Amino acid sequence: MSVESLEKLLVHELKDIYSAEKQILKALPGMAKAATDPELKKEFEGHRKQTEAHVRRIETIFDSLEGKPSGKKCVGMEGLLEEAAGAIKEDMPETLLDAALIGAAQKVEHYEIAAYGTVRTFAEQLGMKEAVRLLQQTLDEEFKSDKALTAIAKHVNPAAQA
Amino acid sequence: MSVESLEKLLVHELKDIYSAEKQILKALPGMAKAATDPELKKEFEGHRKQTEAHVRRIETIFDSLEGKPSGKKCVGMEGLLEEAAGAIKEDMPETLLDAALIGAAQKVEHYEIAAYGTVRTFAEQLGMKEAVRLLQQTLDEEFKSDKALTAIAKHVNPAAQA
Repeated sequence: MSVESLEKLLVHELKDIYSAEKQILKALPGMAKAATDPELKKEFEGHRKQTEAHVRRIETIFDSLEGKPSGKKCVGMEGLLEEAAGAIKEDMPETLLDAALIGAAQKVEHYEIAAYGTVRTFAEQLGMKEAVRLLQQTLDEEFKSDKALTAIAKHVNPAAQA
Repeated sequence: MSVESLEKLLVHELKDIYSAEKQILKALPGMAKAATDPELKKEFEGHRKQTEAHVRRIETIFDSLEGKPSGKKCVGMEGLLEEAAGAIKEDMPETLLDAALIGAAQKVEHYEIAAYGTVRTFAEQLGMKEAVRLLQQTLDEEFKSDKALTAIAKHVNPAAQA
């Protein structure tokens, strides 16, 4: 793919996020299953539904763009989810695993915060109002998820030390 | 490595960030060289010196911990830097490459924001005051770098559209 315009770069980045979201969708059930703290389990389960909505929003944006959102593999997310999978495989007590999972999930959230921040700004520059609205909605939800994980860490970390 | 305590998990995560910082150190000269916007070039060059300080801070923290910071490969950062390298290899005009590099660099920054946020919180839980101070210092600098990139995007993105 030759990237010769800001719109093409936006498409390129949106495909990347689309792949990232699809990978997250696959990883979340395992993370929810591995989590022992009820709030953390619930957060991962809830995030799965939200991620499905994020995927649909990208598909909606592609209705007014050239091509399809699929066909690109996000190597950045692949590495981040490998870290989360690594924590699950690691030999550690349940309370520690919860703390490790929160850490891994916040890296995933921050990847998305950076990625959606970039595409939202590109869409703004291109005057794509509806895309900006949808991307901002997802970005706000990612920020909220990150904050929710920070809040859960407040009781998970002391338990991990005990 | 068996992770049976919060201190061991902190060590585990610090080794991961240490590897991430070392990888960033290797990638930054190429990113600075590829950037055409003078401010962006300067930001990447300045970030290199800062990253060297971040590496030293982790080494300082390890003076009071078991083991060495080296010996672990951060697969998350590997994927993120592959994205940055991919942008440089991609066939695109210089102004677009600047926009793409900012996007890739902000993913790197956000990885670090999440990672340092987690280890700072673990260190707090463990009552490691000096480590908290050093990690917070780095975290503040990562936030500043992310904001600086957002500010540079304000003139890079319109140029990328032109």
